[in-house]
Amino acid sequence: MTQIVSFIGLGAMGYRMAAHLPQTFSEVRVWNRTFEKAQQHAKDYGTQATSLEEAAQADIIFSCLPTSQDVEHLIATLEIKPGAIWVDCTSGVPASAKKLIAELKLKDVDYLDAPVSGQTIGAEKATLTFMVGGSADAFERALPAMQVLGKLIKHVGDSGAGFAVKAVNNMMMAIHLCAACEGASTLKSHGVNVQEAFECINASSGQSAITTSILPNRVFNRAFPSTFALALLAKDTGIALDLVQENKLSAPIIASTQSLVQAASNLVEAGSDFSTLAKMYESINKVTIE
Amino acid sequence: MTQIVSFIGLGAMGYRMAAHLPQTFSEVRVWNRTFEKAQQHAKDYGTQATSLEEAAQADIIFSCLPTSQDVEHLIATLEIKPGAIWVDCTSGVPASAKKLIAELKLKDVDYLDAPVSGQTIGAEKATLTFMVGGSADAFERALPAMQVLGKLIKHVGDSGAGFAVKAVNNMMMAIHLCAACEGASTLKSHGVNVQEAFECINASSGQSAITTSILPNRVFNRAFPSTFALALLAKDTGIALDLVQENKLSAPIIASTQSLVQAASNLVEAGSDFSTLAKMYESINKVTIE
Amino acid sequence: MTQIVSFIGLGAMGYRMAAHLPQTFSEVRVWNRTFEKAQQHAKDYGTQATSLEEAAQADIIFSCLPTSQDVEHLIATLEIKPGAIWVDCTSGVPASAKKLIAELKLKDVDYLDAPVSGQTIGAEKATLTFMVGGSADAFERALPAMQVLGKLIKHVGDSGAGFAVKAVNNMMMAIHLCAACEGASTLKSHGVNVQEAFECINASSGQSAITTSILPNRVFNRAFPSTFALALLAKDTGIALDLVQENKLSAPIIASTQSLVQAASNLVEAGSDFSTLAKMYESINKVTIE
Amino acid sequence: MTQIVSFIGLGAMGYRMAAHLPQTFSEVRVWNRTFEKAQQHAKDYGTQATSLEEAAQADIIFSCLPTSQDVEHLIATLEIKPGAIWVDCTSGVPASAKKLIAELKLKDVDYLDAPVSGQTIGAEKATLTFMVGGSADAFERALPAMQVLGKLIKHVGDSGAGFAVKAVNNMMMAIHLCAACEGASTLKSHGVNVQEAFECINASSGQSAITTSILPNRVFNRAFPSTFALALLAKDTGIALDLVQENKLSAPIIASTQSLVQAASNLVEAGSDFSTLAKMYESINKVTIE
Repeated sequence: MTQIVSFIGLGAMGYRMAAHLPQTFSEVRVWNRTFEKAQQHAKDYGTQATSLEEAAQADIIFSCLPTSQDVEHLIATLEIKPGAIWVDCTSGVPASAKKLIAELKLKDVDYLDAPVSGQTIGAEKATLTFMVGGSADAFERALPAMQVLGKLIKHVGDSGAGFAVKAVNNMMMAIHLCAACEGASTLKSHGVNVQEAFECINASSGQSAITTSILPNRVFNRAFPSTFALALLAKDTGIALDLVQENKLSAPIIASTQSLVQAASNLVEAGSDFSTLAKMYESINKVTIE
Repeated sequence: MTQIVSFIGLGAMGYRMAAHLPQTFSEVRVWNRTFEKAQQHAKDYGTQATSLEEAAQADIIFSCLPTSQDVEHLIATLEIKPGAIWVDCTSGVPASAKKLIAELKLKDVDYLDAPVSGQTIGAEKATLTFMVGGSADAFERALPAMQVLGKLIKHVGDSGAGFAVKAVNNMMMAIHLCAACEGASTLKSHGVNVQEAFECINASSGQSAITTSILPNRVFNRAFPSTFALALLAKDTGIALDLVQENKLSAPIIASTQSLVQAASNLVEAGSDFSTLAKMYESINKVTIE
Repeated sequence: MTQIVSFIGLGAMGYRMAAHLPQTFSEVRVWNRTFEKAQQHAKDYGTQATSLEEAAQADIIFSCLPTSQDVEHLIATLEIKPGAIWVDCTSGVPASAKKLIAELKLKDVDYLDAPVSGQTIGAEKATLTFMVGGSADAFERALPAMQVLGKLIKHVGDSGAGFAVKAVNNMMMAIHLCAACEGASTLKSHGVNVQEAFECINASSGQSAITTSILPNRVFNRAFPSTFALALLAKDTGIALDLVQENKLSAPIIASTQSLVQAASNLVEAGSDFSTLAKMYESINKVTIE
Repeated sequence: MTQIVSFIGLGAMGYRMAAHLPQTFSEVRVWNRTFEKAQQHAKDYGTQATSLEEAAQADIIFSCLPTSQDVEHLIATLEIKPGAIWVDCTSGVPASAKKLIAELKLKDVDYLDAPVSGQTIGAEKATLTFMVGGSADAFERALPAMQVLGKLIKHVGDSGAGFAVKAVNNMMMAIHLCAACEGASTLKSHGVNVQEAFECINASSGQSAITTSILPNRVFNRAFPSTFALALLAKDTGIALDLVQENKLSAPIIASTQSLVQAASNLVEAGSDFSTLAKMYESINKVTIE
C-alpha cells in the first residue's frame, strides 16, 4: 500500500510486530528511544530508522510503550500529520485514551486504544489479538494495518474500551493464577500428585490458560522465566480495580486478587516474572508447587 | 471379559456411563433406588436390573451417588463380594474415602475414590476424565473397566486424592466463574461490547473453560439450563475449603469464593443452575451480563 | 476574639458546629446554599447570614460540605481574604487537599483539611474530634477556633493527612460493621442468644464502637435511623481504597470490605442508613440479627 | 460453701482463677499434668493438690485446658461424681461440647461450655467474662462458683453456645487486628503520624479494643509480648469459620481473615504473640507500624 506507516517503541513486542509491516507497506518508519535498536531493525527488516518527528508524519502510527504516561509524554509536544490514525498498542489506562482522543481530535488526528495479547510468540507469528476502542470509522481505516500484525481484531467499543478489555483480561489471568496456586498448594499438602491432578483439571471445568500453559511451563518446572514482570501485572490489575471503583461496582474477587498480586509484587525482586506469585503461596503454605 | 461388573446409581451421569459396560463385559448388573430406572436401563442397554445385594456380588462395583453420605449409608449394611473393587464415582469427601477404604479392607474389598468430569455429554461418549485415589494395585485392576467409560484416567494419589482433585477442580471452576462475572460486569458498566470482549479474552491469557463454554452457552444467551445445581457446587467448593482448613493452609481466593458461591446458593431457588451465580453479580452491580 | 470567623455549609453537622462560634468570636458569618437556613441560624444563634463573597472575607473560614468536589467548585471562583485560613471539615479526598493547599497558597490563603468525627451529638456538645492535615503554623493559628467546636484536636500530618485519617477511620468502622454482622449471623444461625452474646463480646477483645453502639441502637432494635447514608460510607471507604491503590499497598480486608459496602449500597434505597448493611447479611444468610 | 470444687489445668489462666476459690469454698482440689504446679498452688493459696481421680469427685469441676481434644481425652476414662457439674473454661469446639454433654449425661453429670475472656489480668482480679452454653438448670447451679471468678456471667444458649461466642469473639478481634494493621499501614505509607491518628480513631467510630489496647501496648512500642500465641488465635478463628461452613453461611470477611491469620501463623516462629500478625503487614507493605 502507498500509505506511510510508523512504529514507535521497539521493545520485545514492538520489535517483532514492526517486522511484518514492510511486507505490506512500501514505507515503514521506526523509532525507539535507544536509537540503535531502530537502526538494527532497519537493517534486519528493511524499515527506516527515523526521528520521532518524521515518524509522526505517517498515515498510521503504531505505538507500543510501557505505560499510558509514556505515550502522553511523547504526544504532548509532537506535531502529528493531520488525518493520521494513532494506533496505541500499549497496555494503557482507559481514562488516558479518552484524554488523548480528545486532544488529538483538535489536531485532526484519530486515536485508537488497541492493546494486544499473544505474547512475543504472537508478535513474531503475526497472530496477535487486538482489542480496539475508538470510533468505528478510525477502526475500519486502521484495520488493514492491524491485520498485518494480528489474527483476531475486534472493535470492542468507544475510546478506552480496548484498554479496559486488556486490563480485565490480565485481571482474570491473575485471578486464575491465584486459583491455580491455591488449588495446587491444597492438593500438594494433602499428598496428591499435583501434575497428574492438573492433567485431569486441564480436561475438566477447572481448566484455564494458566493451568494449561503457565503452571507446566513456568511453575512446575521451576523455570519462572522473566518475560512479563509481576510489577507490570500489578499495574494492569490495578487499572482493572480502578475501573471497578470508578463506576461504584462490587467485585470481591477482583479486589482480593489485587491485594495478593500487589503483596507478591512488593515481596519479590524487581523484574521477577508474574509466575513468581506462586512463591508467595509456597511460603505461606510451606509447600512446593511441583 | 468374564468379570461381573455392577453399576449403582443411575442418575443423569450413571445411566449414560453404565450403558457402555455391556460392550466389554458379559454380565453387567445395575441397581437404582427408583427401580424402574434400572429396569428401563436393562431394556435399553442389555444390562441386568438386580437387587442391591446381587449388585454387591460383582468383581467391580461402580457407584455414582449424590454425596459421600449416601455411599456410606449404602455400604454400611451391605455384604460385598470379597476380592471386589468398589469404584466410587461420586463427587465425595476425602475423609469419607479414607474411612471407607479402611472399613472395606476388613471385608477384603478394595475401594477407589474415582470421581469423574466431562458432564453428561462425556458420559454419553465415554470420554470422561477419571481422577482416582487409592492403592496402585486396585487402580491397575480397575483400569480396564474405567477405560470403557473414560478417556483420561489418572491415578492421582492415595485414598481421598481423587475426591480432593474433583473438589479443587470445582472450586477453581467456581473462582473462574466469579472472575468472568466480575470482569463482564465491569466491562458492561463501562460500555464495552461484552461478547466481542470475551472473544478477545478467549484468545488471550484470561481464557478459561468458563469463558469459552459457560458464558456463551448459559449466561450471554440467558439460558441458565438447570444441569448442575448451584447448591451442589456450593457443596463441592465447601469440601475444598474444608481441605484448606484441615491442613491449616491459607487460600484467600478459595475462601472468598466459597462465601460468594454460598451466598448465591442461599439466594436462588433450589435446583437453579450454577451459572445463575451471574445473577447475583447482576443484582449488586445493576448490569445485565450479555 | 476580634477575628472574623465564617462557616460555610449548614448541614446537620455545620448548623450545630457554627452555633458555638458566637460565644467566642464577636463576628461570625454563615452561608448556606439554601439561604433560609443561614437566616434561621442567624436568628437562632446570633450569627450573620451573609453572601458567599462576604463569608470569604473572614480570618478563619470553616467549610463543611458533602464532598471535596463541592469545596473545589466553591473555591474555584471565590476571592478569599489574603492571610485567611480555610478549615475544611468536609470528609474529603487527600488529593483534593493537596490541590487546594497549592492553589490557595498563590492567593496567600492557608488551607487545612480538618474533618471531624463525633456525629451530630458531638457537634451539638462541642466534643468533636478534629483530625487535621496541613502546615503546623496554620494548625496553631486555627487551633483556638477549632477548640471552640471540639475536644480532641490533632495535627496528624501534612496536607491530606486529615482526610486520610477520616477515610481510614470510616473504613475501619465499615470493617467492624461487617465483622459484627457476620459474627451475629453465625451465632444466630447456631441458636445462640445474640444480644446476650454481644454483651459478653462488649466486655471482651472483640469489642468495637460498632458492637457497643451501632448494633444495639440501630440493628438489634430494628431502628436503622437514617443519619449517615450507606452511599456516603461507600464514598469514604472508596477514598481509603484509593489511598491503598495509589501507594501500591496490599490491604485485603479493606479491599474486600469495599466490595461489600458498595454491593450493599447498590442494593438499598438511596438515603438508607449505613447500618442497613446488616440487611444484606440477613438476606444472604437467611437470619434476622436481633 | 460446703460444696467441693475442683480446678483442672493450672496454666496462666487456671492458676490465677483457682486462687480465688478458697475464699468461698471450704474444700478446693487442684490438678495439673505437671504436678509440681498443683503443689505450688496448694502452698500459695490453700488449695489441695490431688490426683485427677480425686479432683473428679467434686460437686463442681472447672477445667481450663488448651483444646477440646485435651478435655475429651481426660474425660474419656475418668469416673466423675454423679450429680456433679463440669464447667469447661477451655476455648473449645461447639461440636465437642455437644458430644461431651451427651456422654456425661449418661453418667448423671452436667456439662457447661464456659469459656472466659479477660486475659490473665481478669483472672487475677476475678473480673472475667463467662459466656456459657448448656442447660439453664446447670447454669443456675454453677453460677455462684463462676461468680467467684468473674464479673459478667451470661447464659448464651444451649450446649456449644459458649464456645461459639468465644470463637466468634476471637474472630472479630482478629478482623479488628487486620483492620488496624491495614489502616495503620495505609496512613504510615502516606506520611501520616500514625499514633496521633489512632488517638483520633480511638475517639471515633473506628475504635475497637484492638485500637485502644493492642496497638499501643504491643505494636507501636514493638513489644509483641508472647501472651496469646498466633497459632492459638488461628485455631479459634478456624473454629469460627467451621461454624460458618457447617451451617452453609456466607461470611466473606471471616473467611478472608482466616486466610490472613493462618498465613501469618504459618510464617512466624511457634509461640509468637498474635500481635505479630502486624509484621506480615509490615513486610508486604514495606512500612513499619509505629
